[in-house]
Amino acid sequence: MLPSRPGPPALPAPDLRPELSPEQARAAFREGAVSPTSGWSDGYAQANLVVVPAAYAYDVLLFAQRNPKPCPVLDVSDVGSPRTTLAPEADLRTDLPLYRIWQDGQLVEERTDVSGAWRPDLVAFLIGCSFSFEGALTRAGVPLRHVEQGRNVAMYRTAVACRPAGRLHGPLVVSMRPIPAALVSTAVRVTAGMPGVHGAPVHIGAPEALGIADLAQPDFGDPVDIGPDEVPVFWACGVTPQAVIEQARVPFAITHAPGYMLITDLPDQKLLLP
Amino acid sequence: MLPSRPGPPALPAPDLRPELSPEQARAAFREGAVSPTSGWSDGYAQANLVVVPAAYAYDVLLFAQRNPKPCPVLDVSDVGSPRTTLAPEADLRTDLPLYRIWQDGQLVEERTDVSGAWRPDLVAFLIGCSFSFEGALTRAGVPLRHVEQGRNVAMYRTAVACRPAGRLHGPLVVSMRPIPAALVSTAVRVTAGMPGVHGAPVHIGAPEALGIADLAQPDFGDPVDIGPDEVPVFWACGVTPQAVIEQARVPFAITHAPGYMLITDLPDQKLLLP
Repeated sequence: MLPSRPGPPALPAPDLRPELSPEQARAAFREGAVSPTSGWSDGYAQANLVVVPAAYAYDVLLFAQRNPKPCPVLDVSDVGSPRTTLAPEADLRTDLPLYRIWQDGQLVEERTDVSGAWRPDLVAFLIGCSFSFEGALTRAGVPLRHVEQGRNVAMYRTAVACRPAGRLHGPLVVSMRPIPAALVSTAVRVTAGMPGVHGAPVHIGAPEALGIADLAQPDFGDPVDIGPDEVPVFWACGVTPQAVIEQARVPFAITHAPGYMLITDLPDQKLLLP
Repeated sequence: MLPSRPGPPALPAPDLRPELSPEQARAAFREGAVSPTSGWSDGYAQANLVVVPAAYAYDVLLFAQRNPKPCPVLDVSDVGSPRTTLAPEADLRTDLPLYRIWQDGQLVEERTDVSGAWRPDLVAFLIGCSFSFEGALTRAGVPLRHVEQGRNVAMYRTAVACRPAGRLHGPLVVSMRPIPAALVSTAVRVTAGMPGVHGAPVHIGAPEALGIADLAQPDFGDPVDIGPDEVPVFWACGVTPQAVIEQARVPFAITHAPGYMLITDLPDQKLLLP
């Protein structure tokens, strides 16, 4: 009789997730757990992952330099290495909960492990994530509706074009959080102090001015309910490179799945100004 | 009888230099005027210039990402273009007061115009300069001894290694300003708010800990007298890439001469946080 194959491990209960160390969280994901990472490992920075062939690495780095709000680069791997200084023990091929594989700008697959797709010519970019400032927002009394509603954050492709770089071009992607009107200033002040994880909002209210027709239909993540005295506040989002990979038809890329981030060993506090 | 050839134009008097617009200052340099630019065009950011072949551009950009204190990138040109968004009317081949040409890591020539050395495969990096925060220091009551003494700022190669990137490696270079002991905190606070132009000091006092044996013998610029109640304060310096070009023996490069910067159209205020 064959031994039964284990399924993915049970997820830690929601109230335990903030308490997990980054190493514990990554171990759970390495073993196959799948979950958006908002609310996990409180106090530690999270990062977007963009992996491209070395032939595209300069274009990606230049795109990031020209578009620092959506693409604050926290680290770049050496060619072929799945390692990052942000989490020296982590393996970038296995330690995120969910990955996407892209060919010629098409999303071809989502996987929990990309070891089999790794190549010696790949370069990994780790880009700051707005989940990293959510702890600071909570401590400042700003509620996080997507966490309360048990959903991934809502993300939208906008009508705003990024500044192109080499072969790369594409729209700005934003994340949206509903903020009580009386706390919008607080949310601006708190996040302005963390430019390494997207910084201050790029847009407050008026989603139609960003080309967003219906907030209930995000392009990535989940729809999040907006209360009557709440304003949609938009931050530049690290999913922007995925929209660029798509629009610029990059021949090959690996990314995280939106909301399913690398949890780093870097304390959020290290991202505070000055 | 041959017409007499004009020499370089007379320099504007020191008290007029802060009043010149960036365009007027660049026009003077384009016509051949030669002067360090500290104190010129008050209120406008200045920039270090590093020009390398496209084959080295990724290494330079990655080096800058890994060493943001000495190398805060303000703009990168497209391949072959001597233009920058920081000063759209400027020509990077003529509009700085003094350039250096490097071959195989050797400084081979200083020139006031590098049009003849320009190549279609060159990429220009504009890197923030500490001269850009000198106006803010003055307004905060912090004296600038090198300006008072009519000298270029003093710069030193240190014993601190930068984080390498690809083929690039080399020491951190710092600029030094003597600051009255009671104003050192003010100087830290003012400059911490401008990370795009090197930000807060990297080191205060104790030059020997940086490997600087004699402050009276700077590696670049001029020696600056230090008063009895003054402390030497060190900022990361945009000359660092020149020490890297030398140590890593980059095959070809063009840079500004230390202290002889590009004066941009960007108001210093734009470099303030957040």
